[in-house]
Amino acid sequence: MIIVTRPSITDDELDRIRERVESLGLRTHVSRGENRTIIGCIGDEGRLENLPLLGMPGVEAVHPVMRPYKLASREFSASRTRIPLADVELGGPAVAIIAGPCSVEGEEMVLRTARAVREAGAHAFRGGAFKPRTSPYSFQGMESEGLEILSRARAESGLPIVTEVMDTRQIEKVAGHADILQIGARNMQNFALLTEVGRVHRPVLLKRGMSATVKDLLLAAEYVMKQGNMKVILCERGIRTFETATRNTFDVAAIPVLKKETHLPVIADPSHAGGIRDLVAPLSFAAVAAGADGLMVEVHPNPEEALSDGDQSLDFDQFRSLMKDLKRFAEAAGRTLGTGHED
Amino acid sequence: MIIVTRPSITDDELDRIRERVESLGLRTHVSRGENRTIIGCIGDEGRLENLPLLGMPGVEAVHPVMRPYKLASREFSASRTRIPLADVELGGPAVAIIAGPCSVEGEEMVLRTARAVREAGAHAFRGGAFKPRTSPYSFQGMESEGLEILSRARAESGLPIVTEVMDTRQIEKVAGHADILQIGARNMQNFALLTEVGRVHRPVLLKRGMSATVKDLLLAAEYVMKQGNMKVILCERGIRTFETATRNTFDVAAIPVLKKETHLPVIADPSHAGGIRDLVAPLSFAAVAAGADGLMVEVHPNPEEALSDGDQSLDFDQFRSLMKDLKRFAEAAGRTLGTGHED
Amino acid sequence: MIIVTRPSITDDELDRIRERVESLGLRTHVSRGENRTIIGCIGDEGRLENLPLLGMPGVEAVHPVMRPYKLASREFSASRTRIPLADVELGGPAVAIIAGPCSVEGEEMVLRTARAVREAGAHAFRGGAFKPRTSPYSFQGMESEGLEILSRARAESGLPIVTEVMDTRQIEKVAGHADILQIGARNMQNFALLTEVGRVHRPVLLKRGMSATVKDLLLAAEYVMKQGNMKVILCERGIRTFETATRNTFDVAAIPVLKKETHLPVIADPSHAGGIRDLVAPLSFAAVAAGADGLMVEVHPNPEEALSDGDQSLDFDQFRSLMKDLKRFAEAAGRTLGTGHED
Amino acid sequence: MIIVTRPSITDDELDRIRERVESLGLRTHVSRGENRTIIGCIGDEGRLENLPLLGMPGVEAVHPVMRPYKLASREFSASRTRIPLADVELGGPAVAIIAGPCSVEGEEMVLRTARAVREAGAHAFRGGAFKPRTSPYSFQGMESEGLEILSRARAESGLPIVTEVMDTRQIEKVAGHADILQIGARNMQNFALLTEVGRVHRPVLLKRGMSATVKDLLLAAEYVMKQGNMKVILCERGIRTFETATRNTFDVAAIPVLKKETHLPVIADPSHAGGIRDLVAPLSFAAVAAGADGLMVEVHPNPEEALSDGDQSLDFDQFRSLMKDLKRFAEAAGRTLGTGHED
Repeated sequence: MIIVTRPSITDDELDRIRERVESLGLRTHVSRGENRTIIGCIGDEGRLENLPLLGMPGVEAVHPVMRPYKLASREFSASRTRIPLADVELGGPAVAIIAGPCSVEGEEMVLRTARAVREAGAHAFRGGAFKPRTSPYSFQGMESEGLEILSRARAESGLPIVTEVMDTRQIEKVAGHADILQIGARNMQNFALLTEVGRVHRPVLLKRGMSATVKDLLLAAEYVMKQGNMKVILCERGIRTFETATRNTFDVAAIPVLKKETHLPVIADPSHAGGIRDLVAPLSFAAVAAGADGLMVEVHPNPEEALSDGDQSLDFDQFRSLMKDLKRFAEAAGRTLGTGHED
Repeated sequence: MIIVTRPSITDDELDRIRERVESLGLRTHVSRGENRTIIGCIGDEGRLENLPLLGMPGVEAVHPVMRPYKLASREFSASRTRIPLADVELGGPAVAIIAGPCSVEGEEMVLRTARAVREAGAHAFRGGAFKPRTSPYSFQGMESEGLEILSRARAESGLPIVTEVMDTRQIEKVAGHADILQIGARNMQNFALLTEVGRVHRPVLLKRGMSATVKDLLLAAEYVMKQGNMKVILCERGIRTFETATRNTFDVAAIPVLKKETHLPVIADPSHAGGIRDLVAPLSFAAVAAGADGLMVEVHPNPEEALSDGDQSLDFDQFRSLMKDLKRFAEAAGRTLGTGHED
Repeated sequence: MIIVTRPSITDDELDRIRERVESLGLRTHVSRGENRTIIGCIGDEGRLENLPLLGMPGVEAVHPVMRPYKLASREFSASRTRIPLADVELGGPAVAIIAGPCSVEGEEMVLRTARAVREAGAHAFRGGAFKPRTSPYSFQGMESEGLEILSRARAESGLPIVTEVMDTRQIEKVAGHADILQIGARNMQNFALLTEVGRVHRPVLLKRGMSATVKDLLLAAEYVMKQGNMKVILCERGIRTFETATRNTFDVAAIPVLKKETHLPVIADPSHAGGIRDLVAPLSFAAVAAGADGLMVEVHPNPEEALSDGDQSLDFDQFRSLMKDLKRFAEAAGRTLGTGHED
Repeated sequence: MIIVTRPSITDDELDRIRERVESLGLRTHVSRGENRTIIGCIGDEGRLENLPLLGMPGVEAVHPVMRPYKLASREFSASRTRIPLADVELGGPAVAIIAGPCSVEGEEMVLRTARAVREAGAHAFRGGAFKPRTSPYSFQGMESEGLEILSRARAESGLPIVTEVMDTRQIEKVAGHADILQIGARNMQNFALLTEVGRVHRPVLLKRGMSATVKDLLLAAEYVMKQGNMKVILCERGIRTFETATRNTFDVAAIPVLKKETHLPVIADPSHAGGIRDLVAPLSFAAVAAGADGLMVEVHPNPEEALSDGDQSLDFDQFRSLMKDLKRFAEAAGRTLGTGHED
């Protein structure tokens, strides 16, 4: 932590700041400039977190030096975290594809979609049984019945299941059916939920919140990891900005930034980022070109009949076409699509 | 709902759109212009919510006509919702003040603060027992013990208690000690939590999410109200923007916009909006000038020792001074501070 | 300037960074921590501006210590800058009101409006002869003819004239008719224009750009002041955020932040910030409550017929009513409206 | 234009709105729903632009139906606009690369860089003689002398020159040395400048403003085109958001959105978007994958010595490496790099 003082700081104020910092077990190191004095704080920066330095007389600015996340940082783990899916490991050399409908709407549509995405080369199946919807009047998901259907989809397709958990009370039930627990963007800072999924032996797919910085996302992952669950997948899905031409603003640069900061795998959700079908392909290509370890794509047997997110869902033909084109971009990035179709 | 079509739309595409809309029980009304054809959809707009119109061939844009919230809208209730606090009703003629520390840190500090803010004219006491913190390494609150202390603060000061609930599993326990349940900004779209607090007989103080629009905030309130709990207080506390000079950007215009849109009371949190002590007074004055029904202000016996939010907490003298100055702005706005000191 | 290094930095990299900094005439001061080494750079920080420190091996982060603006800063001038208008000084004890139509649309409407706002207590008259419009198909202003009309408005009403200059080639002509040169939000970083208005003996009213931070705004003012023109008025008029309920997001906190950072007067434009008539009053009250030195308000004889910004313009009755109500908030803030009506 | 009325609208208010719209030569078409009445306005929507509909009694919302830009829209031109560079046409099948230093710092460095980027396969050379800098104390460019140097760079390398023009008074001089006139992000809504470059026979490279929507960017292009200059290149270079991990937020989705909306070529500036060297390659790959027609990349013989933007400049080796890798992504996108090295 570096403390920058105001030009008008008095010696007493300076002493008081140093005493407070040192009382927490850190050392201080003072550099006097012509206009500003700087206090470097050496030691465990975490102990200063609760110290309201900005409110102390004479303090102008405070700059943290250490990253606030530890377990999620590259420095913590030399090797990249990998999470096994069908055929490939997410975080490994192949680009992993998670596909499926926004919501579980019924058994037949789920099984058909699971088979179709499996055949097209997907490595995991997604589908929501519990749906977070902005309006309470929207379809809220099939809940427990939806989970049962997902289990059947796994049995039949062999694809691991990714599904969202929205409430601490659901975790046990959802974990009984899901291979990967998804935390949605709106729950990225639901700390009770993060803590509880950290106690479960299931990888967690953590979507970036609409107003979350890269640092916030890593701190949310840290909540999960602090409980012992080190299998966290980070997902860029667009942030909220002034631009209304797209549903969200897809922050493609977050992908290389995260890959540099953390050993955790990083995927992208082009469906939510763009919000319309026509943008799914270009955003998928861009994500893979920027280094994404995987994609999560919404696929529906008949998007016009979808109960949620129909505007942004691909049909089976469109998904097959996406996979075909994506292969070229994966290869340009020095990776494969891990479909076995390569050879 | 109004559907704007592309210039290139075919008659078949147009017919198909109309059929889908009409199959859901609405009537359609077509206006042909020189370049665009417009389809007005007349009837229950809610039924169109799941229809992926943007994904249908020939559709260029879709504009909703109805507000998506009902119970929260001004049209639902002619009279403004009022929530009784000590001496005043929030939503009534007086500007209501909720004050107290960010976190419950111990019994003595809570009781002292409750007495001090009561004497200075506050109408409710706030304090967090469960704390949402961006970092898992920060102080997370005194939890159940904190709730007990809050009950004692109510008993001693006579002030109703506002405290945050972060998890559906905590609601019953928190409701056993709190008069008003607070939903934090990070949980504003935690729909499981919103639904559960909607089933409890306690007013809910709902803070606006950092990237929530006014409409999103009203839809979150609608989640609570749909369960039967009509006592929702909306709280503007700053949104996340590119500006870094303040912790958040206080959206003061949201206050008059909300007052026009909804019958629910609207308050402001100048402490979180600005993030530093010096901004609490000007933002409080601005909020009251813009029509806020109340304020929630962080007060601590010794902000330098606070375990959270010390930078933005007022000490007792500063709070008394704020209340004194605020009285003039409340009166300029045609209101009182409801402190009994007026007379 | 403080340079934070990566944990992996080598001694050679560290030496190289120090050499580069010292070669520019600054001293360096190294603090070694357990994980990070910090290099404090002491001396004229401006010399480091072009040094691409972030691109040097071993550097993780760079934190400036000094403010990048000098002439605009509070430290440069102990007393607040004041700019004389009719009856009052902007930046003095009275809240100063600049009012008038968005555009000069004709002589009769300008003279009527000037008289009306003068009678209602305004201290300066605004009106655009050159209009920056997002679309090239919108009304672009009466240009030179508009300037002549503004001169007549001054002669008749006695109010000083504020009008926008959009191009360096117009400055001389506009300065021949205007008392205060306005730089619009879209030109806040038109550095050629800022430099040229800095060479003119006319105060400059500088509107904050839609994506400008408070720091950017002060640096734009610094461009003007560096040329010798120290009479700059800063104007908060809303920033661009994700919120669409208002035309812009009025950053009311920028007012106290600016008042603390600079000796220049700070005003607000509630008309552009909110974008609709109903928000002009609450945002005006909020701005004055937060410490604004003045307001700039759009007034039109018949807003429904206005050629620009009719949605947000007040008619004469509404402006009189605003002035009446504003007086109470100015007094609550310890100021007057300087209308002579006080006494 | 579609006008949505309030439920409380009276017949008189409705008639008055229709009269105003019809008085401007449009027809109206009224659809009465249960709660809202909708007025469709048929005819030349541009005539309604100045009508302050939102301010009229009974109006709740107004939705434009037509795009506000005409010449820039896909509907205006069936074929894509192409702009000849060295070897390739920007907007044609090859991905075109514009490279060079941020600023012209001297003859030797410019000529060396021009040769190096030409050899590595670039199709145009960039370099700033007039520099827009946030601080007036930063290096402002070599101005006229810089332009002379750029002319020599063209003569020697054969590459067309792209350089920025910041002021209407400079246009003639800059156009005497430049093949393509660049308008910087901060001047994207400098309408005087846009109008003047529209009168010059030189293609214009228009950078997206930091807070400009896609629609704003197209309207800025429309300003240029309305004067008769149809050769406009649009450049995505990152927008300003809350995220601070990157200099700007690269809005990669704007590329496919623009390609759908306009016939103008669309390029990306990965150097400014990311702000650091390590992000140039991944953002370049992402841009090409998303469909960009070209890239503009900062290259400097010795970035550590650069007078501006050294943090984000590539050295010659890094640029060669970028071009080599980029070739794979261009091919994955069905394009070439147009370097002649393909064959």
